[in-house]
Amino acid sequence: MPDAAINLRDKLARFSEHWSPRVVAEMNDYQFKLVRIQGEFVWHSHADTDEVFIVLDGEMTLQFRDREVRLSAGEMYVVPLGVEHRPVAARECCVMLVEPKGVVNTGEAGGAYTAPNDVWV
Amino acid sequence: MPDAAINLRDKLARFSEHWSPRVVAEMNDYQFKLVRIQGEFVWHSHADTDEVFIVLDGEMTLQFRDREVRLSAGEMYVVPLGVEHRPVAARECCVMLVEPKGVVNTGEAGGAYTAPNDVWV
Repeated sequence: MPDAAINLRDKLARFSEHWSPRVVAEMNDYQFKLVRIQGEFVWHSHADTDEVFIVLDGEMTLQFRDREVRLSAGEMYVVPLGVEHRPVAARECCVMLVEPKGVVNTGEAGGAYTAPNDVWV
Repeated sequence: MPDAAINLRDKLARFSEHWSPRVVAEMNDYQFKLVRIQGEFVWHSHADTDEVFIVLDGEMTLQFRDREVRLSAGEMYVVPLGVEHRPVAARECCVMLVEPKGVVNTGEAGGAYTAPNDVWV
């Protein structure tokens, strides 16, 4: 059991890569991950789980096939399981993801943006 | 599927009671709750689940029987299942909790601080 709190800003300062989630905490079989995003991700979905986006710094858009949702720092959104989505950010945006352990960032889509899973920072 | 992001500050502005968690989002069978805390809560534990504290505004301390952990805005901590803890805050502190749906705020302890469950804001 850790002696100190997890400081999200300190954790973010330890990496600079985009679209490469880093785990900062586990709760039961779920993980909290930090990710820096910039540009346009791939369209993808997660067949077995919802996925939570919490914006810590900056602004991003979650594109869906029929709408888009804008998020700023201090805002969150739950992408329902099975729903195709594409995160985009004109400028760098720092996000916390919450989802079950083992979820791959590109979901069913695969491709060049697929990041190694379960990398901690 | 909501048309807009969940703004945590706006949600917090809608209630003022202390120690009374309000649900803002669900992910699978988990809930994200906001709570305003001030003073000393009761010692309690949750037998079946870890519990996540993310401080949004202010400062708080998680007291354990053998140590204490201080948290400020932008910091988080995972209380492991079964571990007795007591949240305290000298001044009002705004916190996001993440835990499975159905978790009662006072865990196994019960008592006057026990809040209604599954109240949304």
